[in-house]
Amino acid sequence: MPSIAVCLSPELARLQDFRDKVAVVVDVLRATTTMVTALDHGVKSILPVKSVEECRYFQQKGYIGAAERGGKIVEGFKLGNSPFDYMTPDLAGQKIVFTTTNGTKTIHAIHGADKIIFGAFVNLKAVAETLTRLDKNAVIVCAGWEDEVNLEDTLFAGALLERLAREFSFSGDPAILAHKLYLQSEGKFSMFLEDSSHMRRLRNLDLQKDIDFCLTLDRYNCVPEMANGEISL
Amino acid sequence: MPSIAVCLSPELARLQDFRDKVAVVVDVLRATTTMVTALDHGVKSILPVKSVEECRYFQQKGYIGAAERGGKIVEGFKLGNSPFDYMTPDLAGQKIVFTTTNGTKTIHAIHGADKIIFGAFVNLKAVAETLTRLDKNAVIVCAGWEDEVNLEDTLFAGALLERLAREFSFSGDPAILAHKLYLQSEGKFSMFLEDSSHMRRLRNLDLQKDIDFCLTLDRYNCVPEMANGEISL
Repeated sequence: MPSIAVCLSPELARLQDFRDKVAVVVDVLRATTTMVTALDHGVKSILPVKSVEECRYFQQKGYIGAAERGGKIVEGFKLGNSPFDYMTPDLAGQKIVFTTTNGTKTIHAIHGADKIIFGAFVNLKAVAETLTRLDKNAVIVCAGWEDEVNLEDTLFAGALLERLAREFSFSGDPAILAHKLYLQSEGKFSMFLEDSSHMRRLRNLDLQKDIDFCLTLDRYNCVPEMANGEISL
Repeated sequence: MPSIAVCLSPELARLQDFRDKVAVVVDVLRATTTMVTALDHGVKSILPVKSVEECRYFQQKGYIGAAERGGKIVEGFKLGNSPFDYMTPDLAGQKIVFTTTNGTKTIHAIHGADKIIFGAFVNLKAVAETLTRLDKNAVIVCAGWEDEVNLEDTLFAGALLERLAREFSFSGDPAILAHKLYLQSEGKFSMFLEDSSHMRRLRNLDLQKDIDFCLTLDRYNCVPEMANGEISL
């Protein structure tokens, strides 16, 4: 039986040995939800970059630029980190360059993984099925918020563990913690996350619609994967 | 109303601003439980040091050396990290030098705090009363295990938050997470921690008696405090 661990923040990623493992990157509010949505709507690929400057550079090279900082679209870009930005046929077949506050940093904190895939509540079932099919040791890597552990990504980790409880052994205390947290939520994600700092942050930016979307289960059946530095299906 | 935050691992301590705050160091299994027990039994002070070498050095200077690594007493020392080692009148009035796997490192990760105190289930009520009396912003700093987040210290943080819920506002997601985890335990600590990695580690070392002791509530009414590099009452 393969094992599955949880890394609660990119700041803790150095404690993981990713070799020969599948890493599942999670940034529920909103980066990985948005990636899944964009790719399901026909975007060809997503290039994650660390800085807004890199994002501008690749935009000049023909990519469509998407840049978010602190929950808002960066000036000079048309696309940000809202899944609703990507539900248009205009982007089908396009290559996107994407920089977000926490998501990109998390990807760059993973070294030597056999495979990197992307999960959110909107593709939870598809991610669970992919991990079961791959049948390899795995680590769920939560993006958190500015290196701090956050509630929503930990909750997602717990929800994914619940779906994998028969096929994987849980490795380490963070996995047990995330799973117990999920059990405590009783599946009522929105109520459970009510006081979380990022929910409040997004609500202050009038993004309740985004939050509701990000907490919807199994809307898409696709699992984005990293290959040659870009994310695609 | 003052606020209280939780730092889930010394690895995340750099994300906290400790200035003008009270830091509560937690290493339930077993360092802070042992410190509380030793001081309550009359030990004069405890000098926490990082390395076994420093421990030997201070032992030669007249301190009584206590050294633990990986759950066991280090060769050449009479005292380790079991609270039962310290329940003897022989140690009354003595100065101890103490190095543990995770506890000491945590103390050294806290910079600029107004006050550093030490908490465990055995003095939970006393710690809650002290924080309420001080009426200052506070951070609960969990020692974890080798920089990783652990279940028992997070659970303790949640238990302490529960006792402070009326007097403090919870600051940040780790506090919410710890509190929800505590609620999920329904006060049944031993059962709740059953699968935790350190419980298994200690049980393999035949330390069930220590575990039971460490999970006892409010056995002592004292709160150790750091002053001039040493811990005393």
